Amino acid sequence: MSDLTPAEPSIRRLAILGVGLIGGSLSLAAASAHSGLEVRGYDVDEASCAFAEDAGIVNQMCDSATEAVEGADVAAVCVPVRAIPGLVAECMRAQDPPRAITDVGSTKESVITKLPQQALTRFVGGHPICGAESAGVSFARADLFRNATYFLAPSPDTSLEARGLVEELVGMIGATPVIIKADVHDRIMALMSHAPHVLANIMMQRAGRLAVGGRRALFSSGPSFKDLTRIAGSNPPMWRDIFMENRKAIVKSLRGIAEDLESFCEMLENAEEDRLLEHVIHASSFREELLEHEDIAASTLCKITVRIPDEPGVLSRVMGSLGERYLNIEDLTLHHHSRRTGGDLVLWMNGSENALAARDILVELGYSTVVALPDDSA
Amino acid sequence: MSDLTPAEPSIRRLAILGVGLIGGSLSLAAASAHSGLEVRGYDVDEASCAFAEDAGIVNQMCDSATEAVEGADVAAVCVPVRAIPGLVAECMRAQDPPRAITDVGSTKESVITKLPQQALTRFVGGHPICGAESAGVSFARADLFRNATYFLAPSPDTSLEARGLVEELVGMIGATPVIIKADVHDRIMALMSHAPHVLANIMMQRAGRLAVGGRRALFSSGPSFKDLTRIAGSNPPMWRDIFMENRKAIVKSLRGIAEDLESFCEMLENAEEDRLLEHVIHASSFREELLEHEDIAASTLCKITVRIPDEPGVLSRVMGSLGERYLNIEDLTLHHHSRRTGGDLVLWMNGSENALAARDILVELGYSTVVALPDDSA
Repeated sequence: MSDLTPAEPSIRRLAILGVGLIGGSLSLAAASAHSGLEVRGYDVDEASCAFAEDAGIVNQMCDSATEAVEGADVAAVCVPVRAIPGLVAECMRAQDPPRAITDVGSTKESVITKLPQQALTRFVGGHPICGAESAGVSFARADLFRNATYFLAPSPDTSLEARGLVEELVGMIGATPVIIKADVHDRIMALMSHAPHVLANIMMQRAGRLAVGGRRALFSSGPSFKDLTRIAGSNPPMWRDIFMENRKAIVKSLRGIAEDLESFCEMLENAEEDRLLEHVIHASSFREELLEHEDIAASTLCKITVRIPDEPGVLSRVMGSLGERYLNIEDLTLHHHSRRTGGDLVLWMNGSENALAARDILVELGYSTVVALPDDSA
Repeated sequence: MSDLTPAEPSIRRLAILGVGLIGGSLSLAAASAHSGLEVRGYDVDEASCAFAEDAGIVNQMCDSATEAVEGADVAAVCVPVRAIPGLVAECMRAQDPPRAITDVGSTKESVITKLPQQALTRFVGGHPICGAESAGVSFARADLFRNATYFLAPSPDTSLEARGLVEELVGMIGATPVIIKADVHDRIMALMSHAPHVLANIMMQRAGRLAVGGRRALFSSGPSFKDLTRIAGSNPPMWRDIFMENRKAIVKSLRGIAEDLESFCEMLENAEEDRLLEHVIHASSFREELLEHEDIAASTLCKITVRIPDEPGVLSRVMGSLGERYLNIEDLTLHHHSRRTGGDLVLWMNGSENALAARDILVELGYSTVVALPDDSA
């Protein structure tokens, strides 16, 4: 909570516009934290309305957004990013408009600049980082936001009351509010989320197109290419909208990356070996910092590669045998090769002793297993 | 086997120069396929020599490369890429040089151009794609190359005899030989392996440096950033060498990516929404082609996200319960958050029925679980 939060803001009526996975989860989470809360919902999709009412996701579904927000303390607009400004305008058409309005869009500045002027004092942009899938209201759950970073971007005009109410809501649902300026949010997301999607799409297309001497590059892909392009092509209309709505920051981020690529090319052309080495070491130190931030000491992580056949039950046998001995896995990925040859299961474990103990177990189970200790990482 | 292979090439004596993981595995694999084979080894590292001899990885370790290759049918040079040309030259100093010489370096053209002229008729460049770690000879195993793509790049001067012998060796160890021109190999690897490493390093550094309003971008990383940068900073000296040795192809590949980034920026600046949509759809179709190539139909893949605590045994419980019901997992990743909040286990399964059955089991175990069916992929 910020120092500016009023002493006792209090949410008694919550309106959810767009009762999908995020909106539904918001309602469930808030209601479970505050039993006296009344939640009204609105959604254009009839099936979602019926489900939300039948399953008790909200107290009442309304026929219009205006009706749902009438007299609410907070209205949460949980719809695709381009539909947000219109619904915020709807909120302001109520006789007694909500004291605070928030949204959950992936971009913030473009939303705020499109809001009607009179909504600005009540509006606090929001963006929960909870890795949620757009799987519909039937997958709503009260703990979706627990411990998640929840970015909050007030406008310069936002009142202290509105800000306090939205911070209270975020605290109620178990998330960690992080106050951020809208443009800072968009710049960070441009680099950390939007640019990776662009790179994945570009790399997938280059690989798809490159065929030399009858050989398709696409079919020579290894683990590093597959990790990079795991998100390639995901949800085209949703991502077109996100790209469009954050285009200023994305363009800046992508041109920066293009400049770095050019600098790297120049290092290569000038054969600046020392700088190349420093470049990789520099990346390594930031990766270590990231892992340390997440409580993993990179210096003790061991990589264990297990060749497994493509059969049901194999993973269970592997995990079961390690779990039995209380060997904790920090991270894992499965690199599927094909039905015929199976794949490689890559496990990361803390400490050489654990890794070597795991290897012995896996070899005993009959799987080819290679351990890379921290000092011989490939 | 190519049509050009002589009718009965035959390998009775094999020399391994550099007895590490790859060299040792090559020896074990060849010996297990052909019991009459004699393998002689050479390595500069005394510990590797002792291990290879004691563990019976080779029949005999020699004091020099020249001694090891004397009268050999094939010499396999299994050392870092920049040390290869020197060792090939050593091979040619034998009184009875090997009939064929191959290597296992990650780049091919720079190796071939640095070879002594008189070695060219005997040389076939090699590059097994087996995801091996540089973990040393103690992790050598006979099945390392089984079903792996094994690129073979003959020089324009390579004799049919040398080509036949190296193809025979690759067949013996259970790999699939793919004949490729050296420059084609290097172009494909530049895009599919080397560029992803450059992008990972660049993105990790940008994220490490970006701090706005007191907020470090690095600590706002989500799953897409983490997948992209999993390989950031790996083995700096090895990667400096690979970058240097393939710099022509890498520069070409990176400048192509930079051009694509600029085109994408222009699409954004001109607000070409239809082209943006097509761009993502295009990437999606190539990704589908890649997955289909690997026997997975993207159209039936379901994503299951399970929130799990950071405790030993959790993964075993999850995998065990799914394996018991013969639910086959196609792919998986663990997104670790922190010791305190645990992480998300992401599973990919074929078919909605399997995914929903898995969800029921996981919910019964007490884990929050979200399923994204193929038609609502996020």
